[in-house]
Amino acid sequence: MIKTDKYGIVFNKLKSNILEEWNLYTKHKFVQKISDGSLDKKLYLKYLKQDYVFLIHFSRAWALLVAKSKSVNEMRIASATLDALVNEEIQLHIKTCKAEGITEEQLFKTEEELNNLAYTRYVLEAGYSGDFLDLLVALSPCVFGYGEIGLNLKSISKSDNPYISWIDTYNSKEYQEVCMNIGSLLDEATQDRLGKDFVNNTLWPKLEKTFLIATKLEIDFWEMSLKPE
Amino acid sequence: MIKTDKYGIVFNKLKSNILEEWNLYTKHKFVQKISDGSLDKKLYLKYLKQDYVFLIHFSRAWALLVAKSKSVNEMRIASATLDALVNEEIQLHIKTCKAEGITEEQLFKTEEELNNLAYTRYVLEAGYSGDFLDLLVALSPCVFGYGEIGLNLKSISKSDNPYISWIDTYNSKEYQEVCMNIGSLLDEATQDRLGKDFVNNTLWPKLEKTFLIATKLEIDFWEMSLKPE
Amino acid sequence: MIKTDKYGIVFNKLKSNILEEWNLYTKHKFVQKISDGSLDKKLYLKYLKQDYVFLIHFSRAWALLVAKSKSVNEMRIASATLDALVNEEIQLHIKTCKAEGITEEQLFKTEEELNNLAYTRYVLEAGYSGDFLDLLVALSPCVFGYGEIGLNLKSISKSDNPYISWIDTYNSKEYQEVCMNIGSLLDEATQDRLGKDFVNNTLWPKLEKTFLIATKLEIDFWEMSLKPE
Amino acid sequence: MIKTDKYGIVFNKLKSNILEEWNLYTKHKFVQKISDGSLDKKLYLKYLKQDYVFLIHFSRAWALLVAKSKSVNEMRIASATLDALVNEEIQLHIKTCKAEGITEEQLFKTEEELNNLAYTRYVLEAGYSGDFLDLLVALSPCVFGYGEIGLNLKSISKSDNPYISWIDTYNSKEYQEVCMNIGSLLDEATQDRLGKDFVNNTLWPKLEKTFLIATKLEIDFWEMSLKPE
Repeated sequence: MIKTDKYGIVFNKLKSNILEEWNLYTKHKFVQKISDGSLDKKLYLKYLKQDYVFLIHFSRAWALLVAKSKSVNEMRIASATLDALVNEEIQLHIKTCKAEGITEEQLFKTEEELNNLAYTRYVLEAGYSGDFLDLLVALSPCVFGYGEIGLNLKSISKSDNPYISWIDTYNSKEYQEVCMNIGSLLDEATQDRLGKDFVNNTLWPKLEKTFLIATKLEIDFWEMSLKPE
Repeated sequence: MIKTDKYGIVFNKLKSNILEEWNLYTKHKFVQKISDGSLDKKLYLKYLKQDYVFLIHFSRAWALLVAKSKSVNEMRIASATLDALVNEEIQLHIKTCKAEGITEEQLFKTEEELNNLAYTRYVLEAGYSGDFLDLLVALSPCVFGYGEIGLNLKSISKSDNPYISWIDTYNSKEYQEVCMNIGSLLDEATQDRLGKDFVNNTLWPKLEKTFLIATKLEIDFWEMSLKPE
Repeated sequence: MIKTDKYGIVFNKLKSNILEEWNLYTKHKFVQKISDGSLDKKLYLKYLKQDYVFLIHFSRAWALLVAKSKSVNEMRIASATLDALVNEEIQLHIKTCKAEGITEEQLFKTEEELNNLAYTRYVLEAGYSGDFLDLLVALSPCVFGYGEIGLNLKSISKSDNPYISWIDTYNSKEYQEVCMNIGSLLDEATQDRLGKDFVNNTLWPKLEKTFLIATKLEIDFWEMSLKPE
Repeated sequence: MIKTDKYGIVFNKLKSNILEEWNLYTKHKFVQKISDGSLDKKLYLKYLKQDYVFLIHFSRAWALLVAKSKSVNEMRIASATLDALVNEEIQLHIKTCKAEGITEEQLFKTEEELNNLAYTRYVLEAGYSGDFLDLLVALSPCVFGYGEIGLNLKSISKSDNPYISWIDTYNSKEYQEVCMNIGSLLDEATQDRLGKDFVNNTLWPKLEKTFLIATKLEIDFWEMSLKPE
């Protein structure tokens, strides 16, 4: 059984098309170093700072998704996700960074690196130029990939791993539920627009391409995270 | 003392420029009929249905505001407002309509009238084509006008007024706090962008024009609401 | 034979679905008064001024279409149309108005009426929130309707009609070619996205609705044009 | 005398703030290799292919600028630039590539590299999220930098340089006029929005930051161009 089955049929279809890139992303060296606890603390702190900037732009993209919704139900799920990102996840991030000695002011001054900027602007622009589904698919690799990483790492990481709280966040029941809810949203939104036989819809290949590019941009994000500041 | 002083300096400056139109909006015949309880129930039900469609697009505009934010604080306030609109106000609206015998399905099938469409598309387009401040100003007449109407009507309406719960909603401590918070957001966002001496900034007249047009579109909304379906 | 056959299959399919509204638009009283030359000159001048404001926003929508293009060919046709609108049609309009004693300054100060604003903001917002095809369909009733009106009026209007140059503009070989080129663009863009069997694509009904609303907004534009300033 | 004086005061102000980065861009090793003719032909061909993809997205950004214009004059200049890009420059590019043995089909299949994608999506997103001026400033380093490079290289390159036609393109009277026209547009648009004393306007630092980031993204584009495919 594939662990991500519960994330819905559309995501799993998209993932199965590009398993090689998907594994390069979810099993990246950076992830392995989190998993066995060998990641240099300095790299982790750099990652936290870049990820703070990422989360801000990623939240803006979720907000755009609400603006592009076509039903009250779509708005409800997207705006709940947005609210969780802005009023919980970013706050949690600020707290985590504070515990590591990084003040909110330092976070705010973080210089956004190229690979970070490339990823969020790609997603936002896909959303502005395209429609709801184009944007939701561009957001998908991040949402579901972290869920899958959480599941994978939980089963193999030791409890004294210095990064266990990061792992626990994405393995948590709450985060896994987010993945399932967004998985349902993606399934419904896809079928509402492209029909039950969505893989044969003329628009499907464009979505596959968007998913592939966003996955590659996740790999590039990890690559950046392995380089010292 | 002006009741709306607590809504901040930018709003009160914008309002004071166009007092004539502002009064045509906030003291419109439709509002008077709510105030003395003489509004035809059928017109009220029509208003509720059109307002449901309005709220959906208005929420989309608040979502766009989050996407256009330039600081975490702006995002926080805008996304909290959005969440309240989508996950509380629209739900309350559905409940109110249900109590009046209008099902959610009927609400969903409401045919959007011209004046309704004109207003929300104007606001959304102002946001897409402009920046955060252009959009926030376009959203302002609705937010603050309803607050002011709530205050005005509460002081003159009788408790057996059939529309007392509508009046109470906008006179409520919660809604008045929303107006104060968004008033602060507007003050800060304006001064961050146009400086302390914002009225002399070259960009100010454009904002005045946006505020005027959105106020006129509120008047047109009430006009529409006085015409039977 | 239907005169608009040469405007392509997608437009004719969309039109055939809503023949009643289409005729209310293309055979509107305002059009009839142009046709028999009985239109009050003052109303014509008012129309010219409102149409100037309309053209500016309509051109902005064509620009957005270029931004949302998915191929160089789409960009080419859309940007050629935009260039013709901005650097020819708007200039021609300024010249026509000048001949009628309306200066460019007066044109620029024209106060945009509600029905005018509603139409262009609807189209622009459909474009910003949706994708290329949503926007192209929203632009269609204007483009093809004026072409059809040009054909209809030419065959019945007398050469001493005071509005003959208006009629000649839309009946001209150049304008009819624009309609045919955009008809081809619409056919190709639809089939590229929704497939050959586009009418059975899940996304088709949304496009039908957009076409209907934009057609109704054309009717509202004529209604406005019959009312004195 | 500074060669770029004729490109207007706003551009020269922005450039003078970040001379170090500006020189890293306009005097980059890739440019030097064009200048002395030592650039590996394979790298040049790779550059042409990536630049084709760049031009498509860059043209989309110019189209968005038309959509965000606030006056007919702004629309006129921006849409003329867009038309030149789409109906001349991209065509010229296709021809140049053909002469080098790269077919249009190959161009179309070019896989967009990370640094290329980062740049155009940054510009487009700056435009979608911001206003006309934000977007025009994001477009500036490319427009004016190539103009300056054209001037610089013409004076030092030999006529038998294999890349002389590339140099001639950007040194040409036509391209230099484009730079002057867009320089005037930038000067007027800035002063219309931020006033004569624009450098003291609260919004100015945001524009400086946008100009800096876009300049850095130009450097990253050259870096990419030095790496073999």
